[in-house]
Amino acid sequence: MIGEFEFIENLRKRSAFTRIGDDCAVLPKDGSEDLVVTADLLVEGVDFRQRWASARDVGHKALAVSLSDIAAMGGRPQWALVSIAVPKDLWAADYADEFYEGYLALAVRFGVEVAGGDISRSEGGFVVDSVVAGAVPRGAAILRSGARPGDRIWVSGDLGGAAAALAAFEAGKPDHPSAIRLLRPEPRVELGRSLLESGAVTAMIDISDGLSGDLRHICRASGVGAEIDAAAIPIDPQVGVSEDALRFALNGGEDFELLLTAPANCDLSEISPDLRPIGTITSNRDCVELVSNAGRSPILPGSFRHF
Amino acid sequence: MIGEFEFIENLRKRSAFTRIGDDCAVLPKDGSEDLVVTADLLVEGVDFRQRWASARDVGHKALAVSLSDIAAMGGRPQWALVSIAVPKDLWAADYADEFYEGYLALAVRFGVEVAGGDISRSEGGFVVDSVVAGAVPRGAAILRSGARPGDRIWVSGDLGGAAAALAAFEAGKPDHPSAIRLLRPEPRVELGRSLLESGAVTAMIDISDGLSGDLRHICRASGVGAEIDAAAIPIDPQVGVSEDALRFALNGGEDFELLLTAPANCDLSEISPDLRPIGTITSNRDCVELVSNAGRSPILPGSFRHF
Repeated sequence: MIGEFEFIENLRKRSAFTRIGDDCAVLPKDGSEDLVVTADLLVEGVDFRQRWASARDVGHKALAVSLSDIAAMGGRPQWALVSIAVPKDLWAADYADEFYEGYLALAVRFGVEVAGGDISRSEGGFVVDSVVAGAVPRGAAILRSGARPGDRIWVSGDLGGAAAALAAFEAGKPDHPSAIRLLRPEPRVELGRSLLESGAVTAMIDISDGLSGDLRHICRASGVGAEIDAAAIPIDPQVGVSEDALRFALNGGEDFELLLTAPANCDLSEISPDLRPIGTITSNRDCVELVSNAGRSPILPGSFRHF
Repeated sequence: MIGEFEFIENLRKRSAFTRIGDDCAVLPKDGSEDLVVTADLLVEGVDFRQRWASARDVGHKALAVSLSDIAAMGGRPQWALVSIAVPKDLWAADYADEFYEGYLALAVRFGVEVAGGDISRSEGGFVVDSVVAGAVPRGAAILRSGARPGDRIWVSGDLGGAAAALAAFEAGKPDHPSAIRLLRPEPRVELGRSLLESGAVTAMIDISDGLSGDLRHICRASGVGAEIDAAAIPIDPQVGVSEDALRFALNGGEDFELLLTAPANCDLSEISPDLRPIGTITSNRDCVELVSNAGRSPILPGSFRHF
């Protein structure tokens, strides 16, 4: 049974879907701007659980993950369509109402107009598909495919917090200091736009699958390799010191920070102190390595997969 | 417990969602065109059943229902995003592959570029959300709200075929002469564009909920009433002659024909012989009546509701 990444790659090849394979599809809009669009599907019991996420949390997150994709292209979010399938008992319990409250509160904050969507009943759990469109200056969207050997690799903020919270929830611990990272992620929209405006960024992605998997997406799309300095990975202080900490930061998804590359002579910390260098792009195609005092080891993709 | 139509109306009022309430949202695109966008969610066990719909049928239909919404605005379809949640056993059985074959075959026929989407696992049945965007000349999208007293009401093609097939399937009959209407609906995209170009149409909607419900949507949005001539309703010849025939044609959803209004002096049958007049718009606000030899009777909304 193939996984979803292989499935999408097959689909892309078979159908010449040249716009598939980035955080957003880039489509012509008008003479001065392109449209960037993204779809994100969240399924109860797979992508979230009612046990720890409120309807409002799910509404917030459904939009946040799409806004994070827009951020990763350097886009300015504009409008959204949100479709939900609701089980009968949740419909009766006003779940949909609270879901929209979370979605709309974030939409207002980011100036996103909710233009429509659809509602159906679900025979299983709650399902939401969020589609968001944004604008970028024509031809300027930041893709995954522009990383070049010698580029420095940067990451925004701290990693591992969402994964640590998820592990705590799954272990039956009802609370964790970084739960907010998992339940109400903050998309890096302003930072993404500043990075685009800087003109320095060669490739960018948001960390939704996990650093190991998302760095591999950049390497594959750009035809390059990467070396990460283990000591430079900014681990969320809430994760605590444990042997799991580096694993959470490397493989834990859903931090929704930005991972990007820029020529070595660009100091991106001038754009934001949240940006820190963690490694270098190499010409060693598809070889992604972790460098530490203990030596070099390959970083295998440890990201979450649906299948 | 309120139904989804009331829920959407409440949401629209509360949030000033001025673009919600038509077949598509109309968004500014560039100096000469607007973008029309629509989202349609299909849920296994609610909106279709594997017992009678193949994966390819579901793929076809997921796109067809969105194209029908674009048609109802007079739009030219351009691109689509399609998200699916797939149960593990269907994933292993290549259901997703066959679904995409149906979706893509129709996309190619209508020149729609599939630009992206998302894939998740489902703990319930198969779920698909299809988002399609199209273009209309700026300010020219045909809304539901433009019907005026005295306008003639027109419908394209025949009605009731999809509902008759659904009733047969639900009664355990594995086949019906109009099954194709239910499983592989043909969106009226070319006709919708011709109607927009004619400049004659004052309001339009596609018949997805059923003639009774969709006519009511036009009346409510336009602040008018309607009289339908029972003898003029074009009943699908495959429905057969029975007391159910008129009920299928009035309340059966999913025929995906166009329902529209135009000034009484416009003969729309010159645009297409498929267009037939079935009644008149009145100033009797929200009063929708059927006129037959037996007299007048109110047409109550008999459309499908999820909740």
